[in-house]
Amino acid sequence: MSKVWRAAALAAAFAFASAPASGEEGMWTFDNLPTQRMQRDIGWAPDQAWINRVMAGTARIPGCSATNVSGQGLVLTNHHCVISCVTALSTARANYIENGFMARAREEELRCPGMNVQVLTGISDVTQRIETATAGAAPDAFARTRDAEIARIEGECVSGERCEVVTLYQGGRYAVYRYKRYDDVRLVFAPEHSVAAFGGDPDNFNFPRYCLDFSLLRVYENGAPAATPAHLSMRFTPVSEGEIALVAGNPGSTSRLRTSAQLAFERDVALPWQLTSLAEARGRIIAYAQQGPDQARIASNTLQNVENAYKALWGRRMALADAEGFARVTAAEADLQARVRRNAASQRATGDAWGEIAAAQNAYRDIYYPYQYLEVRAGERSILFGYARDLVRAAAEREKPDAERLPRYTNARLPSVEQFINAQRPIEPAFERIHLELWLSKMREMLTVDHPVVRRVLGSESPEALAARLSQSRLADPAFRRALWEGGAAAIAASDDPLIVFVRAWDGDARTLRAQYQAQVEGPIARAQERIARARFQAFGTGLYPDATFSPRLSYGRVQGWQEGSRAIPALTYARGIYERATGQAPFALPQSWRDAHNRIDADTIFNVSTTNDVIGGNSGSPLLDREGRVIGAVFDGNIHSLGGEYFYDGELNRTVTVASTAIRMALADVYRMDALVAELEGR
Amino acid sequence: MSKVWRAAALAAAFAFASAPASGEEGMWTFDNLPTQRMQRDIGWAPDQAWINRVMAGTARIPGCSATNVSGQGLVLTNHHCVISCVTALSTARANYIENGFMARAREEELRCPGMNVQVLTGISDVTQRIETATAGAAPDAFARTRDAEIARIEGECVSGERCEVVTLYQGGRYAVYRYKRYDDVRLVFAPEHSVAAFGGDPDNFNFPRYCLDFSLLRVYENGAPAATPAHLSMRFTPVSEGEIALVAGNPGSTSRLRTSAQLAFERDVALPWQLTSLAEARGRIIAYAQQGPDQARIASNTLQNVENAYKALWGRRMALADAEGFARVTAAEADLQARVRRNAASQRATGDAWGEIAAAQNAYRDIYYPYQYLEVRAGERSILFGYARDLVRAAAEREKPDAERLPRYTNARLPSVEQFINAQRPIEPAFERIHLELWLSKMREMLTVDHPVVRRVLGSESPEALAARLSQSRLADPAFRRALWEGGAAAIAASDDPLIVFVRAWDGDARTLRAQYQAQVEGPIARAQERIARARFQAFGTGLYPDATFSPRLSYGRVQGWQEGSRAIPALTYARGIYERATGQAPFALPQSWRDAHNRIDADTIFNVSTTNDVIGGNSGSPLLDREGRVIGAVFDGNIHSLGGEYFYDGELNRTVTVASTAIRMALADVYRMDALVAELEGR
Repeated sequence: MSKVWRAAALAAAFAFASAPASGEEGMWTFDNLPTQRMQRDIGWAPDQAWINRVMAGTARIPGCSATNVSGQGLVLTNHHCVISCVTALSTARANYIENGFMARAREEELRCPGMNVQVLTGISDVTQRIETATAGAAPDAFARTRDAEIARIEGECVSGERCEVVTLYQGGRYAVYRYKRYDDVRLVFAPEHSVAAFGGDPDNFNFPRYCLDFSLLRVYENGAPAATPAHLSMRFTPVSEGEIALVAGNPGSTSRLRTSAQLAFERDVALPWQLTSLAEARGRIIAYAQQGPDQARIASNTLQNVENAYKALWGRRMALADAEGFARVTAAEADLQARVRRNAASQRATGDAWGEIAAAQNAYRDIYYPYQYLEVRAGERSILFGYARDLVRAAAEREKPDAERLPRYTNARLPSVEQFINAQRPIEPAFERIHLELWLSKMREMLTVDHPVVRRVLGSESPEALAARLSQSRLADPAFRRALWEGGAAAIAASDDPLIVFVRAWDGDARTLRAQYQAQVEGPIARAQERIARARFQAFGTGLYPDATFSPRLSYGRVQGWQEGSRAIPALTYARGIYERATGQAPFALPQSWRDAHNRIDADTIFNVSTTNDVIGGNSGSPLLDREGRVIGAVFDGNIHSLGGEYFYDGELNRTVTVASTAIRMALADVYRMDALVAELEGR
Repeated sequence: MSKVWRAAALAAAFAFASAPASGEEGMWTFDNLPTQRMQRDIGWAPDQAWINRVMAGTARIPGCSATNVSGQGLVLTNHHCVISCVTALSTARANYIENGFMARAREEELRCPGMNVQVLTGISDVTQRIETATAGAAPDAFARTRDAEIARIEGECVSGERCEVVTLYQGGRYAVYRYKRYDDVRLVFAPEHSVAAFGGDPDNFNFPRYCLDFSLLRVYENGAPAATPAHLSMRFTPVSEGEIALVAGNPGSTSRLRTSAQLAFERDVALPWQLTSLAEARGRIIAYAQQGPDQARIASNTLQNVENAYKALWGRRMALADAEGFARVTAAEADLQARVRRNAASQRATGDAWGEIAAAQNAYRDIYYPYQYLEVRAGERSILFGYARDLVRAAAEREKPDAERLPRYTNARLPSVEQFINAQRPIEPAFERIHLELWLSKMREMLTVDHPVVRRVLGSESPEALAARLSQSRLADPAFRRALWEGGAAAIAASDDPLIVFVRAWDGDARTLRAQYQAQVEGPIARAQERIARARFQAFGTGLYPDATFSPRLSYGRVQGWQEGSRAIPALTYARGIYERATGQAPFALPQSWRDAHNRIDADTIFNVSTTNDVIGGNSGSPLLDREGRVIGAVFDGNIHSLGGEYFYDGELNRTVTVASTAIRMALADVYRMDALVAELEGR
């Protein structure tokens, strides 16, 4: 982010002081909405009925957000949120990535493997329970003790519900979020990838934008579409510049309350390593995709994820590497520290929390790469490795009492793992081999050949030979996985599948690193963060929003563009623009359906919308709502400045990008002729 | 570089205070050797005869250093310094990368395309001439004025010589270096790549090490081996720990005299971008190389370069991202600034030189990516693009007076360009396409689709389609290039070759950026650096060494290992180690010749050597010399800590890595049976 741009943008803001205020920062929990601030900033705030209605009508899906938009279980989200489903349902003969998927009758709706939809039904505070349970724990036992209590709380959840303990304000507050969960989710409509992701990676996080990034799912119960009377309605009249806009969704994670020591680690160690890893993976995946149309289809989803992550992390690194950006963090930290010092009680309670975190970050430096390669990102992007590790670990963990298990394998969370193991999913050994080889070769590079764990993992094999061998695992077969799952520890111990043998051989090393991380890094940091969180409440009251935690939040703002140096970026784009931008070559090639429809559609239809809402990854698929709670679009992106939103929100520059309901209706009605769907969305 | 390691190493140094001092910092010019410091540090210093002998016996080759080791023009360097020659001479039927190249008679020696050997014949100071010429120049005209005077000086060089004006001490001193140049250079011996680069990228910059990274060339004059009486002799008796070792070679470049603003730019902008670019290229190149043995051979050289650059830049980034490391830079800068402030005359002369550099760096931020993509790294790694740009530019530049040309195309430098254009070199369109596509797609990504220059470069084509089209250029044909070179501006204007048309279309944009860079960045920085250089001379006298400039330097030190945390790394490895480390899988697979020779060779032969010399990339192929000036090995690497040597030398940790003369002799005599070569090296 150029300093020159920023200064110019600030100057521009002063020049247009009559423009609506745009300091609409925050991803607020539904039980602590800043109604006074909203009245001040946008002149409006929701009542409890509005809140309840929006909570009930919105949902969480894996990695994304969604909205229930009809009484028959129809769910609106982004295309990029269902791309793994579209990929999984596609075959060499039926390429739904390329041609789109359009169920013109209920019978044509196809079940998405591994997909689920979760609707929030309630929030209750459990801060006291966690605090009581962990009161006596030493820093190195803290994480374990806390996780055991979390498993206990989640285990008390009634059947049919999914409960999740959410750590808010860095441990300043804990709450149980209760969800109703639908596991039978079917694909109803997905446009062609070329128009959904029009502009592809080059346009990603940029604006003006022309993406039809939406799709429709339907939740089923007992084999029939679920009755969902609590849905939200769509509004198909155009949005106007300056109008109030709300986003209800599940922002994944932010780091706004982290200390400067944590962010310096992020800037200097974690992000540079992640970026170069992603860049090399991208090179390998692009080369694979260029081998032919089948390979392109197989790689499509992964490539999009990798490119998106790369650009997002690049934006974050830029934000932290910007001296002015980092100064915001240190200034806020110094301010809180000064407030703590001025209050003897707060000073006593907080102690040297910042110093403890810095010390834990230093301890983290020493185990960072082994911990990442053997535990956190082991086998990254290899689906087969994921199966193998889950099978090996679940077999061991299921034999333990619930509170002693690794968090992923507690009774409350085991159904998700089992669903992952059982879901039918095409596996391509050649593509798996690339991910396994990348992981193993980078591990050897970063830890060096002489590292004892590298020697144990590789034996005398090269990463290339080992990856080729492991990618032949029989775990691609669901029945084989099922048998291992049901066979438990005995079946795992007896298995001669190469990937099971491989994971089994060094899972102990990985667990040791995990325990070391918990004792030396996670626990001490969590303890210290709790104290900083309390100090923050003491200094500023409870009118704060917590960092994003992939749980439901509301953000408020307005339809608004921004000033990019000397260039004014408008808030709205129109259908005509997609035709003007099309070059005929990917990713700027329109599908046949859109070329055919050119004369049928209204060129003045609003296509994509820029708003001031504060969002982050995970908000994809969130409804953009008007003040009546009607859906005016599906959020799918932020602008380039929003990437620094991981660390701070800049009201002048951060923008949310949405595919407008008007573009959705136009596409369904005039391009794809999905008349029944249009009628359903219009509530007819 | 872990802080813990460093602290431990320092503690260890105190514990072994009786060990030889190892502060042997510096890459010294042959006309300013620190004989007093050498006496103090290693108890020895060379006399003028020694200096003259070493200067005459060592040489520079493209990107590397070398030694003349026989009276019949034999030249010792690294295998990795001739890998592009070995690749160019290889074919699908004769794979010299895989099988090595062994000329058992003079007639079998094959000419290396584009290779040349340059021997330094003299150094004269021209500081006054440059200062006089540039005295009146405004900062924005400074670089142009200086370059014109440099072209004039280099143009005065007598025929048969190559003259090069070297900017020393950041412009504190200018000198003409005169070289005798050999253009007929033939490959004599290269071992198999698998043993030359044993351990490959995983072991690169690591130690203990087992690489046979040497090769032999021969310079020819008038079709016969050149008579080279001034050569250096090789010593084949074992080196011993602690013995004095000198390195005479051409360190490429260092940044030790740069300001903190320049290094912060390096850390925050340049290195992260270069690293991710290299990582993605690496992914693409590995995927290409995996397509088959032909592709592996074609990609081998490029892949090795990319991996080496990646690891080197990663080490640099780590050094700068280390708060303690960066503090060395700012502390030295603050110290010099304080000295300047204490002296009114120095203060007046220096002015706000540091502030001017910081301002120029900020100006650089705004044009950095366009300047890199369109000018500095345009078409990176594409040989065809290199031809096209040289042909287009040389045609235009040759019509101008010498002093007004771009530096690459002055009369003094044009022969190198012409040699590059004429050299026979195999071109693989599929491999070219990858480089062109990467360059074009990253340019679009970083500058965005809407950047006017991106629009001009791409037109309505995608990077993929454009790269495919350009890679079909006829410039792969030497005769076609020759015709365009000789046809000059008219031939270029009339050409319909896609790559010529392409480069022609936007060369003006690239030149504009270049001029902008010179006026706003290079010139102001050079002016300010000159003043800082003078302030440094004033404060510290002339007993300083300049930053590396790929011109001949001497570095002194000792044979010595180092302390890595609790682990003592020995100075020497032995032949037995390569057999112990071999797993049979690349890059730890020994070639058949070495497996066959296992029982013949002496397992106690010293293989690779660690010394305290201060070296950097470009020193590859340098002789490691004993105090008698005898060659005891060929330098091929540094340890991982030496990568931070770009910015500072740490005597406790920085180490040079050399393939020992004993290993070279053993390989030639006992593995390859090259008896005539052994006799020649032994002076028999």
